[in-house]
Amino acid sequence: MLKPNMNYKNLKDSYLFYNISQKIKAYLAEHPNSRIYRLGIGDVSLPLCTEVINSLHEAVNDQSVKETFHGYLPECGAPFLQEKIVKYYEERGVKISADEVFISSGASDNLGDILDLFDASSTALVIEPAYPAYVDANIMAGREIVHLNSGIENNFLPLPDDTVKADLIYICSPNNPTGAVYNKEQLKLWVDFANKNGSIIIFDAAYEAFIEDDNLPHSIFEIEGAKTCAIEICSLSKTAGFTGTRLGYTIISRELVREDMSLHDMWVRNRTTKTNGVSYIIQKGGAAVFTEEGQKQIKENIKFYKENAKILTKTFDKLGIWYCGGKNAPYVWIKCPKGMTSWEFFDYLLNEIQVVGTPGVGFGECGEGYFRFSTFGSIEDTLESAKKIEELLS
Amino acid sequence: MLKPNMNYKNLKDSYLFYNISQKIKAYLAEHPNSRIYRLGIGDVSLPLCTEVINSLHEAVNDQSVKETFHGYLPECGAPFLQEKIVKYYEERGVKISADEVFISSGASDNLGDILDLFDASSTALVIEPAYPAYVDANIMAGREIVHLNSGIENNFLPLPDDTVKADLIYICSPNNPTGAVYNKEQLKLWVDFANKNGSIIIFDAAYEAFIEDDNLPHSIFEIEGAKTCAIEICSLSKTAGFTGTRLGYTIISRELVREDMSLHDMWVRNRTTKTNGVSYIIQKGGAAVFTEEGQKQIKENIKFYKENAKILTKTFDKLGIWYCGGKNAPYVWIKCPKGMTSWEFFDYLLNEIQVVGTPGVGFGECGEGYFRFSTFGSIEDTLESAKKIEELLS
Repeated sequence: MLKPNMNYKNLKDSYLFYNISQKIKAYLAEHPNSRIYRLGIGDVSLPLCTEVINSLHEAVNDQSVKETFHGYLPECGAPFLQEKIVKYYEERGVKISADEVFISSGASDNLGDILDLFDASSTALVIEPAYPAYVDANIMAGREIVHLNSGIENNFLPLPDDTVKADLIYICSPNNPTGAVYNKEQLKLWVDFANKNGSIIIFDAAYEAFIEDDNLPHSIFEIEGAKTCAIEICSLSKTAGFTGTRLGYTIISRELVREDMSLHDMWVRNRTTKTNGVSYIIQKGGAAVFTEEGQKQIKENIKFYKENAKILTKTFDKLGIWYCGGKNAPYVWIKCPKGMTSWEFFDYLLNEIQVVGTPGVGFGECGEGYFRFSTFGSIEDTLESAKKIEELLS
Repeated sequence: MLKPNMNYKNLKDSYLFYNISQKIKAYLAEHPNSRIYRLGIGDVSLPLCTEVINSLHEAVNDQSVKETFHGYLPECGAPFLQEKIVKYYEERGVKISADEVFISSGASDNLGDILDLFDASSTALVIEPAYPAYVDANIMAGREIVHLNSGIENNFLPLPDDTVKADLIYICSPNNPTGAVYNKEQLKLWVDFANKNGSIIIFDAAYEAFIEDDNLPHSIFEIEGAKTCAIEICSLSKTAGFTGTRLGYTIISRELVREDMSLHDMWVRNRTTKTNGVSYIIQKGGAAVFTEEGQKQIKENIKFYKENAKILTKTFDKLGIWYCGGKNAPYVWIKCPKGMTSWEFFDYLLNEIQVVGTPGVGFGECGEGYFRFSTFGSIEDTLESAKKIEELLS
């Protein structure tokens, strides 16, 4: 009799987004003609930029005739895209080689799959509040989770100390949901900690393109010593609007070794066994993001989302509400006013001004009393929401 | 100290394709102006059909403007594609619902990932000769492999008996590398065996579109009882030339339950945790395969490969060489003439007539003395190879 993976029994159902949609539904049933202002959304709203669109069309044309048709590509990624990413890192002073860049269908895909490289006995440290998949993917593998809470006292950027024990360490910076970003000195403490303890950092850099402060690190490999202790997982989802187009990349240095085993070589073996790589068409589209014109165009889009962030942070500044994020990240994370819980504040905004955000407690218990606003919505919704929030909370 | 997944140490390096390329290289170094006839290739050579190309262009256009732009899609698949696949199965009398169809980036991707649903203590039965990834993906998970050899005595279609013990059973039909296809009665024996023992069959249907004999099953779900014991994994790679475009699907019935756990629900949970789904653009391209015109066009391509198969099988018929496959599969599997081993025959063909195929022993020990020819090459290469083989072996 086949035994299923019993670890799945330990997964908790997440009702966060389900509950949000149910509450909106109930509100609309009672107030049928209301307009809802959606600032909860974690998805982009702007289309792909022209440079990417043109490249995608060209790639489709390549697939239409025998002379330019592409069958199987290298499982770890097409060299034309790997080389573009090498250059993208070079501009920031980070030297990696093309075979250390693994092309994926997106960060979320590799965040789960990469766990195959580690023994089930390893413990995983999750800094909360956090993206729920970090926890769930490790529960599926039967791994013990260590929760490290963050809060206002450390600006949601906790640092390691000797009480912390973990083999795998998840760091998301710029952070979802808090928008907080580690600086180089802070990240260096985590790198040193990992090297000292033989831990591996899974660095989720999905929001790096939103950093505007030149002193903040986009990549963990900007920190000395990171190559021997970190795997960086990145995505074009938020950088270039690829949430529905799907593309990402994972960097594993040849220097990353544990117990004489090269994690780089293990991942090559994993990929060549468990995938036939990412679509030629999509990789071609992705390569266009890293051209000069592509970079210019995606930066225009990011600027647009940044306008939304400014509208929101100005409002919270005026209201004297504590927040982090917004400046170097697409999320603004606020402390709920008047001592409200996350869900109380959610209901209050929905019922009073029809603004929808995301309750912070949905990202972990220490998110209770906080609330996430996304900047990926339309400028109209953001402007109107900000006005209404200001009126309501003044 | 993080412990890596030590099971990777048990993986054997596969030198099959590396050795082939080294031998060709050495030959060309000595005979610089030789033309090599490549019948070893497992990749398609015809471009995507017009219907698919048009749909891909349309989807790219959708991503270029805000009104039609698609962000995140459902992780398990876009309903427009799931519904097309439901109808494709319906035409063959198989009833499944759209939420039992999971869209993937290809069969190879899901053949590895699906193992996450099973306990490491389960044993995996691999019918050999076989696609090497079946074995490697299970070794990575620390699973015990049971090898079931096949041979001429059972036409490379072994059947279960009471000595067979396995929790997971891999069946690839039409088979890679042998091209052998189980009929309904034979497949029923495997389904009954699995239901009796609580095993689960992983049915690799990647070559189903090559079946031309109306009595042979394209899907394991054509067999009564399969829904309670089988997972079907399929691909558009060979069906519609998607080897470099990447798209596949996996069928898990809601009726598939072990120890009170629904494998269907577990897979939903796995996908929603470990992926954000397959590219909108590629799913749109895939949907075009299942239109009336799309089916007509891909059948034209398959007919082309079938011509190659006929050229080869006619030659082996004339020469009195034992073979299987070719008729309902894109591979022709022959017994090496004159008692040669697989590699001896490889060298003989390369040195004498510059024809390259794949040594059968590369797919498992019981493949020794056999040889695989692919029909995915050009008709010119196939015709010329057949002529040369006939001259050489007459």
